[in-house]
Parts: sequence; C-alpha cells; structure tokens
Amino acid sequence: MSKSAWIKSVKGLLIDISGVLHEAGTDHAMFGAIEALTKLRQAKVPYLLCTNETSLDSRSFITKLNDLGLNVTMDDIQAPAPLTCRYLKDNNLRPFLLIRPELRADFEGLNENDPNAVVIGDAVDAFSFENLNKAFRLLIGNPQCEFIAMGRTKYYQKNGELVLDLGVYVAALECAVEREAKVIGKPAKEYFHTALRKLHLESNQVAMVGDDILSDIGGAQKAGLRGVLVRSGKYRAERDENHATVKPDLICNNLLEFVNMILT
Amino acid sequence: MSKSAWIKSVKGLLIDISGVLHEAGTDHAMFGAIEALTKLRQAKVPYLLCTNETSLDSRSFITKLNDLGLNVTMDDIQAPAPLTCRYLKDNNLRPFLLIRPELRADFEGLNENDPNAVVIGDAVDAFSFENLNKAFRLLIGNPQCEFIAMGRTKYYQKNGELVLDLGVYVAALECAVEREAKVIGKPAKEYFHTALRKLHLESNQVAMVGDDILSDIGGAQKAGLRGVLVRSGKYRAERDENHATVKPDLICNNLLEFVNMILT
Repeated sequence: MSKSAWIKSVKGLLIDISGVLHEAGTDHAMFGAIEALTKLRQAKVPYLLCTNETSLDSRSFITKLNDLGLNVTMDDIQAPAPLTCRYLKDNNLRPFLLIRPELRADFEGLNENDPNAVVIGDAVDAFSFENLNKAFRLLIGNPQCEFIAMGRTKYYQKNGELVLDLGVYVAALECAVEREAKVIGKPAKEYFHTALRKLHLESNQVAMVGDDILSDIGGAQKAGLRGVLVRSGKYRAERDENHATVKPDLICNNLLEFVNMILT
Repeated sequence: MSKSAWIKSVKGLLIDISGVLHEAGTDHAMFGAIEALTKLRQAKVPYLLCTNETSLDSRSFITKLNDLGLNVTMDDIQAPAPLTCRYLKDNNLRPFLLIRPELRADFEGLNENDPNAVVIGDAVDAFSFENLNKAFRLLIGNPQCEFIAMGRTKYYQKNGELVLDLGVYVAALECAVEREAKVIGKPAKEYFHTALRKLHLESNQVAMVGDDILSDIGGAQKAGLRGVLVRSGKYRAERDENHATVKPDLICNNLLEFVNMILT
C-alpha cells in the first residue's frame, strides 16, 4: 500500500504522551498538541493516549494533563499501573512494588506481605542498591515469583536532559536472574491489542504516534499497527532516522502534522 | 586428554579469592584455603590470586587477607583496579569513577575533570539513580567516551546472602547506550593472558579455580585454560552442575581437594 493510501485508511490513533503531548519537567503542552486533540475530537476520530508513564497515579496524572490544557478524562488514557494492579488482583499476587511513592494510589488494596511478585515502575530515586537487591533476592530465591515490568523504556527526556527509565533496571534484573520479565505496557503486543479493543478497531486501521523508536514504533509494528515517529522528546535524528532494527512507517515533526495529514 | 592426565599436567594455578579463599563479610579463611596455599608454596607450584574484587584498594585488601592468615603479598594478586588505572594513564583518560570510596587509593594521580571515560566497579550504595544517570549521560552524549567495566560478575555471596555485583549495572548501561563495555577483569581473555605472562606459563599448563561459572570457568576456558569449579561461595548445585553454556573441566568441594589432586 502506498504511503498516502495507508494514511487515508487510518481510522483511529494511539498517542504517546511524554515527548508527544508534553515534555516531562515542563509546564506547557508541546507545539500543536492541544490543537491536534481538538481536531480529532471534532472529526470524531477515536484515539487513546497510550502511555508507559508510571510517575504519577492515574488521577493525579490526568489533573496534570488538564493543567496543561489537554482536556482529557480517565477514559482517554491507557497506563500500565491500573492494568498491572488488575493483573495482580486477578492472580492473587502479593507484590513487592519498586515504584515511586506518587504511583502508590494506583495499587490500593493489595497485600504486600511475603511478596510473590516483583513489579518494576519508573522508580527514580527508589532504584537504590538496597531496593534492587530486594527485588533480586525475591526473584532468585523463588523461581515461581512473578517478574513484572511496567514497560521497557530505556530513557526519556526531562527538561532537555535524558533520564534513565525503568527499562535499564529491568535489563539489570533480567541479567542477574537469567529470566525475562513479563511486560505490562509498551512494547508488549497485548498492551496494543487491549487499546485496539477499547477503540473497537482492527490493528490495520490504527497508527501509533510516539517518540520512542523501540517501545512506540517497534512495539506497534509488531502488533500489526502503523508506527509514526515524531521529531520531539527523546527523538534523535542520528539514531532514529536510520535505526538498526526499526523503520517507522512515517516520521513527522509533531502530532499536529500527522493529524492534518489524516484529516485532509 | 583424560581427566587424570590433564590434572597431572597442571603446572600453575589461577585462584579466585571471594568464594574460594574466604567469603565476603566473614572473618575467617574458608576450609582448607590456608593449607592449600602452603602446600603450593612448598611444592613450588606457581599461582596467582586472580580476583575481580573492587571493594578495597590493593594495599587494604592484602592486609585483610593476611588478617585471615592467608600470608600473601602484592605480587601474589592480580586485581582489576590497578590494571584499569594503568590503562587510564597510558591512554590519557579522565575517568568518572563509579566505585566505592574504599577503592579510590588504587586510582591516585588521575585527572577526573571533564570525564572522557566511565569506569564501573562494585560501587554498592554508590549505584544510586543519580550516579547511574551521570554515567549514562557521559556515554550517550559522547560516543568517544570510553566505557570500562572492572568485571562482569553478576552477584556474589556475602554472609550467606546473595548480593548484586557490578555486572548487572554494566548490563543496564549497555542496554541504555547500546554499546558494549570493555572489560578489564574476568572474564576478559586479556586478563587471563596477563596472568599467564606473570606465571611464565602457557594457557594449557594452567587451571583457574573459582566459584563463578561464567567469570571464572567460562572466561578461563575461552582463554584456553582449564576451569575448576568449587562447591563454595555463590556456587549452587541446581544452576552450576548442569549450566546451559559452561561445563567445568572439574568440580571440587574446595581448593585443597584440587591441590591435593595435582600434588599426588
């Protein structure tokens, strides 16, 4: 299918938040983000904000996005923490939560005694030597202990500076215990398929727009969606425009540029 | 060559320290360690203590080993920190040292301003989120910045408990910046070959005795030496006796058992 043909065939969007709608550490939406979402709503193009954000619980995160003028509700967002909490409850798991305190509200009502699951979020300063050892000992001491990663993102951009994300700590633990984490979040195929069910669309009708070549673009493409990379956030031309393993279906300057393409 | 034939042909030994001669956090030598070294000296079998220890500078480390009754000198030991310091000086490198304060004496006389090399040791609590980000930004911001790991050991045993070692943090950074660290220490081939030159022996005349299936046994075998695993330290029967990738040439209960085999 030609590029213009698939762009015209897009019926819905999955949209990454950090690096696309705003940049961590700043207090304003990114160029064109508010206009792009407004145009999608007016044109009745369904979309879902698909984030790997684990820095804030859902309620606080939505308040923050609305303070930026993005006008979103709980139904507009898919984030890994509520999905993980549901999975833990459904499987009677008692987690050791390696997360920052600001995320705890998304994990209410769980028994955290005698853990039989390790859950890794973007823990920031909680990624201490002590906490990483605690996770390691739970996993190596009990092969039945579940190992859950809320994403695989390696780093993100905050206030113009790159910051390590949970993915590298997940890699560290995988290296130590020689087994793979179950990912709840991008780039897991199931995360994309859950989002498609919410949009009532098929994978070939939907494009994912993001700034992470691996989690957003690579993950979406493996799940059967189109992947559109934006030139913002952690995007770096020298690395992402000729990536060794992932080739975006399209590269745009920002979300608005792509929304204008599908709406004209 | 039959097992008894190669054991008889061993002319020298490389001996790991932690998990073989003593266990971290304890104040005594391991069973048979003192007797084994005494027998080697009496029989004039050359040996070198080949450690990846980066928890103490060389001088303090030797004092500690002698306090355990092991009777060793500087010439008996090969450790990664002095080799790394030499490499940094020879190449005019200005390191960011991610190490614990107790190792700093091995890196005296280096310029640490405006780093163009990242050096990772067993930094313990210094493996903070902040320090790992500092290393990450140096490496991702400058592809010429050297990335040096003083070993790849994943974990060790201390006071009966497993503790994460530098190897998993090296893996985390390798994952983040998508390039491989240069290893100065086991399992790097060059580290074993440096030790052989000190013993004036060829690789097929020497056996490495250690408790780390990957760094000691796997590394030695790749460098052409025999690898003898001991059942102490971090050794675990279920994992190491049928390891997926490494098969020791011999497994002994301890160093003394192997020394008795080569001396009879």
